[in-house]
Order: sequence, then structure tokens, then C-alpha cells
Amino acid sequence: MTGTLYGLGIGPGDPELITLKALRLLQAAPVLAYPALEDGESLARAIIAPHLTAPKIELAIRIPMTVAREPAQAAYDKAAEEIGAHLSAGQDVAVLCEGDPFFYGSFMYLFGRIAENFPVEVVPGVSSLTACATALQSPLSARNDILTVLPAPLSSDILRARLAETDSAAIMKVGRHFERVRDLIMEMGLGDNARYIERATMANEKILPLSEVPADAAPYFSMILIHKRGQAWK
Amino acid sequence: MTGTLYGLGIGPGDPELITLKALRLLQAAPVLAYPALEDGESLARAIIAPHLTAPKIELAIRIPMTVAREPAQAAYDKAAEEIGAHLSAGQDVAVLCEGDPFFYGSFMYLFGRIAENFPVEVVPGVSSLTACATALQSPLSARNDILTVLPAPLSSDILRARLAETDSAAIMKVGRHFERVRDLIMEMGLGDNARYIERATMANEKILPLSEVPADAAPYFSMILIHKRGQAWK
Repeated sequence: MTGTLYGLGIGPGDPELITLKALRLLQAAPVLAYPALEDGESLARAIIAPHLTAPKIELAIRIPMTVAREPAQAAYDKAAEEIGAHLSAGQDVAVLCEGDPFFYGSFMYLFGRIAENFPVEVVPGVSSLTACATALQSPLSARNDILTVLPAPLSSDILRARLAETDSAAIMKVGRHFERVRDLIMEMGLGDNARYIERATMANEKILPLSEVPADAAPYFSMILIHKRGQAWK
Repeated sequence: MTGTLYGLGIGPGDPELITLKALRLLQAAPVLAYPALEDGESLARAIIAPHLTAPKIELAIRIPMTVAREPAQAAYDKAAEEIGAHLSAGQDVAVLCEGDPFFYGSFMYLFGRIAENFPVEVVPGVSSLTACATALQSPLSARNDILTVLPAPLSSDILRARLAETDSAAIMKVGRHFERVRDLIMEMGLGDNARYIERATMANEKILPLSEVPADAAPYFSMILIHKRGQAWK
């Protein structure tokens, strides 16, 4: 009997935004794996720390943050091998995924490597997308609105073209692209329709008008939501 | 002291996909409100039924399913008034929202009517978007992919134009538009990239190849996910 790989969406940051299902599987699994920075910290593990009731085998997956793809691919290969060894030995492994495992998550790289050889169950989680919208008290989309999710690293031309055509948009991974994206939103006349938030639902959540975000200080976990129709839901 | 309105995302259907936070607020609220069909059934209430530990005051919000907007608006006005009476009396009211309250949810109509006069807290939930992706074992989007959410009632021209430009797409509310949308996907050569699912995470969840979905039988809670890049996550 081989073990099962569980890809658990643990939600956007507030430990209380984990689902009952993810919590149950997390607490039952003898082996826990999670992404971690190269120097040690793991946001995912910090999020679920209040829920850890018993010691487990823990695997920190440390992915080099390089522009080149190969070092990261090698790290995923190694992690998949380590996880596979536990699964082969009959142990279930729970992989912690911030937000939702399949919404811009790194879990898919493990999934792609493991799903052909072992049973995998993926548990959806509250994504940063809806967490940001609720924290901003700002509905994402209504009725037949088109909602477009745009990673900020895309070129300004692509961002402009997609923003021109959509009813609402979420611009993710803003970070060091903030200044360029803010200027582009202003040029398009969408400043009044845009709202900025960082680290939604976490203890250090911050909501700011676009004009007050320090140009160089937007973190990776920041998002801009845009609703062309304003308060269309009234 | 007035009460607080809680808009609770209760997840896509599996009662275990509610968050700890929504569960806590649900169980603490003396008054429960939820959308219901005109003839009585409430899917939202059925989802949380296993979690009801004590009797509560219950308000079924019955919205007429007409093409004209006015009857629905009048029903939301009436519901907001009833809820407001409880809030004025100092009672918290929990409104159940399938999926996430601000992701194509009807909660925003209550929110728009109540948030100016009473404190409102919105709790994000697992949306059908990510629930469908995980049930299909099919990542929604990776890296700098553009993800576009398209309601199926949009015109074929708009659907075609947006599908042509995006990396991945979720077509929601497929229902009676299934045949037209399927043909359009096939014409665009995206048939092999598309996956169909109905009632994700519910007891009667169904996953079918596009070619095997009965033309007239797709329910409202059905979705088609399209990934142009195939298994880009490998």
C-alpha cells in the first residue's frame, strides 16, 4: 500500500481561513511538506502552526529564487523524490499550499512530478483573489462580468490591452512592478476604480489608496483590484 | 448596540469545505439568512445543515428568477429590510453564500443595501473556480498566465475574442448555453484543452468529456476549464 499525496489549500494567511477538510488531513498526515525560503522561513508552515497538535516528519522544500528555471526544476525533482520515498513506504504526505493549490501555486510542479506514480488528492482553499476582495469589501464580479486575472510581470502593452477589455481585473504579484502598473492604471483613467491591498487576512494586512503606496515598497503578496463599473452591485 | 452582518462564504458544496472562521460565526449568530428557490429549497442551507448545532431564527431570501430586474430588486429590498430589523435590534445576522460572497455571488446585492447603515464583515470562501480545478486535477494557472473568467451567457463573439487572448479560462454558468459554448470551443480547436465538470465537490459531482455531455442537460452549476498550454506545470 502506497501513501497518498494531499495538496492542501491552507488559505490566504489567517489560520482560521483553513477548511475543515484541509485541517483534518493535515492533522492526520504523518509527513508534512511545505515551501520555504532558502534561508529557512516558511510562511505556509507559520500559517498552520496553531493547528499542529502532534510532531510530524517535516520536509522543507527550498526553491532557489533565480531567473533561470533549471535550479528550481532540480529542487522540485529532489523534493518529489523525497516525498515519493515516504509515499512508497506507505506514509501519507500533506503538502501545504498557501491560498489554493491550483491558483498560481507552486504545488503544481510537485503534482506534475508525482501524480503519475502515486494517488494524489487536492483540497481547494480560499485563494488570495477572493481574500483580497472581501478584505477590501469590494465585490470581484457580478452577473455576466468578465473577470481577468493578470500577473503584474506581464508587459505594459499586454496589461493595457487586457484591462481595456475586461469588466473587472485582479493584478497579482505586484511587488517591484508597482510603480509601472500604477502609472498605467492612472493613464487609463482607472485610478478611481482601483484598490490596493497587501498581505490580505494576515496580521500585517495593509490597504492603501494607490497614490499612497511607497513606490519601492510593495511586497510580492500585494494585489490591485479594478472594477470598471464601480458599485454595480447596488 | 446594533448587530453585525456576516457574509459567510460556505464553500462550493462539500460541507467540509467551510472554513473554521465561517463555521464559528455561523454557529454563533442568532439569525441565519440564505438564498432559497421560490418553492422552498435552499442549497446553501443544505450545505451547512450538518453544522447546525442549535435552533436559530431563519430568513429564507426568495428571489424571483425573472428576466426583468425589478422583481429581484424588490425582493432584495425586502430581505435587506428584514435583516436590518434584526441588526437594529442588536442581533448579528449570518448570510450564507455558496462559494465566495464576492465571486459572482448574490450577496453583493444585500451588501450594497446594508453596508452603509450597519457593520458588515465578509468571510471569503472556497470558490467554485478553484473547487472545479482541484476536482478536475487540473491547475488553473501558473507563473504569468492570464486567467479569464467568462460567464457563458455572454455573446459568442465576446467569448471567442476573450478565449483567443487568454492562457487559461473558466467558463461559468454553462447551463443552457452548453451546446453553443461547446461548438465554439471545438471550432477554435480547443477541444483537447477543455474539461467539463458539474456540481464540483457535491455528492452528485460529475466530470465528463465535452463530447459526452448531453446537449440539453448541463446544470447551472457547471463549468468548463480551458488551459491552452496543456500540462504547462511539468
